[in-house]
Amino acid sequence: MVSAPRQAVVLLSGGLDSATTLAVARRDGFDAVCLAFAYGQNHADELGAAARVARAQDSPLRVIELDASAFAGNALTGDGQIPKGRSGPEIAGGIPATYVPARNLVFLSLALGVAETLGARDLFIGVNAVDYSGYPDCRPEFISAFEETANLATKAGVASDSFRLHTPLIHLSKAQIIRLGADLGVDYALTLSCYDPDDDGRACGRCDSCALRRRGFEEAGVPDPTRYAPGVAT
Amino acid sequence: MVSAPRQAVVLLSGGLDSATTLAVARRDGFDAVCLAFAYGQNHADELGAAARVARAQDSPLRVIELDASAFAGNALTGDGQIPKGRSGPEIAGGIPATYVPARNLVFLSLALGVAETLGARDLFIGVNAVDYSGYPDCRPEFISAFEETANLATKAGVASDSFRLHTPLIHLSKAQIIRLGADLGVDYALTLSCYDPDDDGRACGRCDSCALRRRGFEEAGVPDPTRYAPGVAT
Repeated sequence: MVSAPRQAVVLLSGGLDSATTLAVARRDGFDAVCLAFAYGQNHADELGAAARVARAQDSPLRVIELDASAFAGNALTGDGQIPKGRSGPEIAGGIPATYVPARNLVFLSLALGVAETLGARDLFIGVNAVDYSGYPDCRPEFISAFEETANLATKAGVASDSFRLHTPLIHLSKAQIIRLGADLGVDYALTLSCYDPDDDGRACGRCDSCALRRRGFEEAGVPDPTRYAPGVAT
Repeated sequence: MVSAPRQAVVLLSGGLDSATTLAVARRDGFDAVCLAFAYGQNHADELGAAARVARAQDSPLRVIELDASAFAGNALTGDGQIPKGRSGPEIAGGIPATYVPARNLVFLSLALGVAETLGARDLFIGVNAVDYSGYPDCRPEFISAFEETANLATKAGVASDSFRLHTPLIHLSKAQIIRLGADLGVDYALTLSCYDPDDDGRACGRCDSCALRRRGFEEAGVPDPTRYAPGVAT
């Protein structure tokens, strides 16, 4: 007997991590509904990357518009400076300038609403507590607390038909994530991780996110398909 | 020595409960920043009521636009039927048709982002677990879980500079809420509780929310200033 695939809502930013998370959800037998957010990111290229990644993995994408004023005052949506040229230990220290107040909580709450509307009980998010431990909303204890809150916030929780929040990457290094995705056939050329791409959507190669990604490909022994801006040493 | 008032973010729907909650926040010495959401409510009159209530209590109002598609499939934002003419025991049973998936969680998450941006640590929400116990996201256990999650989701939580979620109405009956608000000088004529007002913003007098509100004024012994649609027996 073949059972019908279950639906899952997968948060998709268009970056390397969420593209891998989508592949894991599909490997695990879920029909994925991808969710991206338009919230005044400085680089709208992210949404283009999310659309390409969803299409390549045969999954529908829903884009939810979010009022950017809710997220004022940080380096990703405001005028803050995106740090460049930092190395591993510097990146690991403290809460990044690119921290957006309560962002993952807002995204997950909206994903929960969509999931409940669809009748889905599974949510996937590509948070990671290893390389980028400075983000408070990527920690395992945040994930557990959200899952509990989600089940108290909803009809499903009342009916003991619980939501599950899957974080398949949370304890993996960037290199491990890349090897996992490569095994699952993820085309990383479609993804965009850079915080500060050029007008053609090419990566700067120097922001924290680029630095972690480049080192990840090196350590994984997987060729880096990233399109870098001219002049970036590769 | 007079200390500077602390800022608090107060969720304001324009209804009776949130108007009372705002008055409590001000009584407790907070400078209130009110937050309302435009999310495809069938009656945009709510936002007009929120603006009137905020103005009457000398507090700024921020309106955050929310993509209505995140909340599809319920009687408040969709095509569902709003129940009418039910009495107390009927209203108390089960989860209402007007339940919106994960709504309070989404609203509180956005309020948390605004609070963190402002440097505020106090949030107020007028949820109530007595008259309308059918909403899962009005229960005390949801409130506790959210507070814990909020402190794990944010910079402030990491710095042990904790957020507090105030729910001053949670254990009050509607009549007690009305007496409290009347003592604090709340002008309930400015508020709108009806799920289905007419084109002039007058209350239907028959939906669950109107029924609870009318009975509350009766039990409180406070004159009901609500503008009802013509033909509603008062």
